[in-house]
Amino acid sequence: MNKHLCRAITLAFVSGGTIVAQFTNILMPQPEHLAAGTGQLTLSSSFSIGTTKTADPRLDAAIREAILQLRRKTALEIVLKTNSAPTLTIAVDSPGQVIQSVDENESYSLTSTATHIDLKAPTAVGAMRGLQTLLQLVQSSGSDYVIPAVTIQDSPRFPWRGLMIDCGRHFEPIPVLKRNIDAMAAVKLNVFHWHLTEDQGFRIESKVFPKLTALGSDGLFYTQAEARDLVAYARARGIRVVPEFEMPGHSTAWLVAYPELSSARAPSGIRREFGVSDFALDPTREETYTFIDRFLTEMVTLFPDPYLHIGGDETVSPEWKSDPRILAFMQAHQLKDPDALQAYFNQRVLKILTRLHRHMIGWDEILNPALPKDIIIQSWRGQASLDKGAQQGYQGLLSAGYYLDGMQPAGKHYLVDPSPSAAALTPDQRKLILGGEVAMWAEQVNEQTIDSRVWPRTAAIAERFWSPETVTDVDDMYRRLDKVSVELEANGLNHLNHEGASLRELAGTENIDALQTFASVIEPVSFGERYQQQKTSQLTVLDRFVDAVRPDPPSKHAVDLLMRGFLAKPSDAADRQALATIFQSMIDCTPEVRRQMAISPRLADAQTRAQQLPTLAKAGLQALTFIGSNQKASAGWKSSALAAIADAKKPSAIVRFTFLDSLTELVNRVSE
Amino acid sequence: MNKHLCRAITLAFVSGGTIVAQFTNILMPQPEHLAAGTGQLTLSSSFSIGTTKTADPRLDAAIREAILQLRRKTALEIVLKTNSAPTLTIAVDSPGQVIQSVDENESYSLTSTATHIDLKAPTAVGAMRGLQTLLQLVQSSGSDYVIPAVTIQDSPRFPWRGLMIDCGRHFEPIPVLKRNIDAMAAVKLNVFHWHLTEDQGFRIESKVFPKLTALGSDGLFYTQAEARDLVAYARARGIRVVPEFEMPGHSTAWLVAYPELSSARAPSGIRREFGVSDFALDPTREETYTFIDRFLTEMVTLFPDPYLHIGGDETVSPEWKSDPRILAFMQAHQLKDPDALQAYFNQRVLKILTRLHRHMIGWDEILNPALPKDIIIQSWRGQASLDKGAQQGYQGLLSAGYYLDGMQPAGKHYLVDPSPSAAALTPDQRKLILGGEVAMWAEQVNEQTIDSRVWPRTAAIAERFWSPETVTDVDDMYRRLDKVSVELEANGLNHLNHEGASLRELAGTENIDALQTFASVIEPVSFGERYQQQKTSQLTVLDRFVDAVRPDPPSKHAVDLLMRGFLAKPSDAADRQALATIFQSMIDCTPEVRRQMAISPRLADAQTRAQQLPTLAKAGLQALTFIGSNQKASAGWKSSALAAIADAKKPSAIVRFTFLDSLTELVNRVSE
Repeated sequence: MNKHLCRAITLAFVSGGTIVAQFTNILMPQPEHLAAGTGQLTLSSSFSIGTTKTADPRLDAAIREAILQLRRKTALEIVLKTNSAPTLTIAVDSPGQVIQSVDENESYSLTSTATHIDLKAPTAVGAMRGLQTLLQLVQSSGSDYVIPAVTIQDSPRFPWRGLMIDCGRHFEPIPVLKRNIDAMAAVKLNVFHWHLTEDQGFRIESKVFPKLTALGSDGLFYTQAEARDLVAYARARGIRVVPEFEMPGHSTAWLVAYPELSSARAPSGIRREFGVSDFALDPTREETYTFIDRFLTEMVTLFPDPYLHIGGDETVSPEWKSDPRILAFMQAHQLKDPDALQAYFNQRVLKILTRLHRHMIGWDEILNPALPKDIIIQSWRGQASLDKGAQQGYQGLLSAGYYLDGMQPAGKHYLVDPSPSAAALTPDQRKLILGGEVAMWAEQVNEQTIDSRVWPRTAAIAERFWSPETVTDVDDMYRRLDKVSVELEANGLNHLNHEGASLRELAGTENIDALQTFASVIEPVSFGERYQQQKTSQLTVLDRFVDAVRPDPPSKHAVDLLMRGFLAKPSDAADRQALATIFQSMIDCTPEVRRQMAISPRLADAQTRAQQLPTLAKAGLQALTFIGSNQKASAGWKSSALAAIADAKKPSAIVRFTFLDSLTELVNRVSE
Repeated sequence: MNKHLCRAITLAFVSGGTIVAQFTNILMPQPEHLAAGTGQLTLSSSFSIGTTKTADPRLDAAIREAILQLRRKTALEIVLKTNSAPTLTIAVDSPGQVIQSVDENESYSLTSTATHIDLKAPTAVGAMRGLQTLLQLVQSSGSDYVIPAVTIQDSPRFPWRGLMIDCGRHFEPIPVLKRNIDAMAAVKLNVFHWHLTEDQGFRIESKVFPKLTALGSDGLFYTQAEARDLVAYARARGIRVVPEFEMPGHSTAWLVAYPELSSARAPSGIRREFGVSDFALDPTREETYTFIDRFLTEMVTLFPDPYLHIGGDETVSPEWKSDPRILAFMQAHQLKDPDALQAYFNQRVLKILTRLHRHMIGWDEILNPALPKDIIIQSWRGQASLDKGAQQGYQGLLSAGYYLDGMQPAGKHYLVDPSPSAAALTPDQRKLILGGEVAMWAEQVNEQTIDSRVWPRTAAIAERFWSPETVTDVDDMYRRLDKVSVELEANGLNHLNHEGASLRELAGTENIDALQTFASVIEPVSFGERYQQQKTSQLTVLDRFVDAVRPDPPSKHAVDLLMRGFLAKPSDAADRQALATIFQSMIDCTPEVRRQMAISPRLADAQTRAQQLPTLAKAGLQALTFIGSNQKASAGWKSSALAAIADAKKPSAIVRFTFLDSLTELVNRVSE
């Protein structure tokens, strides 16, 4: 954010810098029930913790971690002290299940007064959720850090609140996954869905079938020890790990290693292009099921969760429509089309999973009446598909609406509800909607950029999954998102750091203030639009300007908020002045931006945007003047301004401006 | 850096944004001989590499890494291609020594033309140095990335170019050390001096004496596997690892585990305070030497380098002057004082090291005629101490002048020469000065802050160790330091990211532009000054404003440069305008800074500085006007301005302004 935008936001969000000795609600997700009390507990180095009822090593570790966080947040030399009259008393009824289940009780209650904090939970996982709330409650009284007096009763709206990371198309090293799991815990997500196999890479070590990674991974895979360690790491934070092994489609990398399992041809190598491949496992051979059986029998030793994801989406095999042998098999088994053949495949895999005590999850395509009702359908197709499953008695998860690669703003994802009360479902059907999962597909993200694509937007979605359906105030969400985002960075994510570091690297200098101003009103286009413009493959180097900027930067909502304020009351000078400052900063930054772009080939393609920006900003400034002073524009001004906006909406440099909708609204309000 | 300072620097450093199709020298360290040619080689995805003569896995790995760097720097889909007419031909005579020695040949020659690059080196290490130069040569021609035509003959001035990191007082996790080793390789340093034991922590696993870490490390130590891996990691980058085990002093952590080795009392626990402790190993007991023998016999299996550092500094044990048993021993062995007793200890340890085929290194205090001439004295006391050693025939390393915790500017360290030609040494004595080591003592750094304390200043010192003595242009060093600093960040350091992330965390918001402007003219005070004000211990939480800001931020030299320009030619408007913009930005940022400080207890102590800043900036603006327009100030103006500066120099908030010397000079030039 550049200085001017920051000031604008400050004006919008802070009530004059006064310090209020009362609770400021910056919790994310919002708890189910919250009542602010009076007074506050002042934190000091004498802070102490006592646990009653259950002793549990996992809870102990969570408490030690909370202490470290309290130290960081306050700079107080807080060390773990336990005594008979502790500042914080934690009472947990039970450690919780050895293998965290989908119906693990995550509720807790938290009561703080001026002298004491009580945290009660039926399970250690519930207590962990309460500790995260406690950390978010720490605020400043001016001279001290305090925990305000509150009474909170909290439990999640949905039991399944996930984040899926595609580690197939681009490999993400373990430290990247760990810091993302830390962030998940901070916003009370509870399922890490680990997408481990793709056409572009097979990422998990199999000792039974070592060729899977030897030939299918470019050497980029997780060892079994690393996978076990990650599962333990997640469990320590109250997070389940659900692995996904894509079958029968998205399986090119399997077939590079074991071409005999292919429906027909052997692939020439790991797929580098993206999009749907036409390779699939052969559902007609017994060897395929023997292989899957042995492979999954090995995998369940790594992944104790009762659910196992088989993918199942986008299976396209021309041979399923043309190969005489396959067609004969289908006829013999009365399978009328490829969908039926896939359903047959799924039934066979289901038998294996059942023997292994695992429930099946798959994408929409696995939905078939032939499958039993204990499977879960994860919907990438949408609410209608999800509801259709529920109406047939299938459990479901919503992922449509939570695809991060669409580069949509947090506020848009935030309003997508997995199970809106308006939906045409019976109460029993409604119970089948277990929750949702954010999906981070990795065609265009790598280990440097992934955090900035996942966060902070995922925090807003996490609130959707946890908080009551009625919590839908987008402006208030953004107010709190600023706080949670900064906390997530302090806990290890690079999502805020990434932009500055990338711009420095692109420009080859620390002197990037103009570039940062420019970048603050730019965001990446969606995966699809980028693909159309750039035809990205797995080999594309992801370090251009588009990779530096982030989706939904703070300027987007800030400008929108100011614009709404200004248009609601054009006579008020504050919003107008703030907007004018922003537009002026856009104009001011351009000469230096263009100079730097001229000497950096990787910035050069954004020259068009740098040319467009001052024209847009000037139109904005003029519109502010016209409306603010109740003047009319000269004839043709409006069409000229709208033409400039239309021009700026045309694809270029794989990036787009964040403020064009607000600007359009402004221009349209000008009278001619 | 805030926008205004950036612009100022841009004005100072860039010649109008024109692109010159010729070599721009941004190399650091500067090579011994360089001749720029004409033309340039345009990089493309068809870039290929061929090696001739020696095949070597270490060289192959370095080439693969260089390819990744080229991809990052250019976004070209460069993959490793070898063919008969490669773009880059690398000819290496020999892989080099299995255990890199102090006299490893690190020279190389590099010749590039419009079509071809030749890199020749006698060893793989030399070729690695050349590859780093090649990466620094990549520059922009506007539309493309190119390598300009040059001819370079290069070799280091000193064979020993080290960085010491104290992992005793604060533990640094392995990833931190690895990224620092990467950075060392980028600027051609070749010794990582690993300070592994301290009063505050024993950091290396001993399987023979497991209590050393069980009781002496708080659980924060390196396993033997990690140590071996780090040694291999360093070797792969042409860097030796010299371990240091402090004895007989700085050994509280040993004695926590094995109190029977203490000169008298058992310590009550790991020492949390800093400063010199009064515990020491007992030099009068045979058990001490048996212990050291067994311990070092184990350690040399981890650390193959022929040198081993025994510390030896600041040994203070009251018992060496009072304990009857120790005094009797001293008398019996004709040891007249504690120094003689330590010399006796060193002689005994030397025997152990000799048996283990290790040369001894130690700090100044080990210098004693009783020790043979193959030891190395590392001087923290200064040039005189070093020269005195050389005059007595001892090899030496300079560390005085390179202590990073003094928070001195890069330009000051840069001008400290380990062996100035003016020194009173014979040519043979001069040869005994092997080089120098940067020292990062860790009283007040942790894993978050260390990068910003070590870099980029260490890059400037690395140039001192490598480049000819005559390379001393401080302004030119800073010009190049900006480039190398950004490259180091792109390779994994957080030294530039850290400030923004910390300020966001301290302020609890992304909106930190005013704070960043403020921070850009602030730096931490020295270790000693901070200690005086804050009495830091190992338990002090290092996340206050002082920990966010960095030593020698770019503003410091930028303001100095502009001030020199302005004072040399006050009639020229450019420098005056740039300075005025900077002073104005200082004034403008203050209200928002003060508002944020009022609501963040961890920022609150810097309120004094925020109050002082606008007064100083106003004085600066007035002085610019007086001098620029040849006006006289009214009587008393100057003394008032100097009083404000004096006030701002008083200790407060453990931070100081970066520009007070420049401002003083400016004010003093005003006529009254």
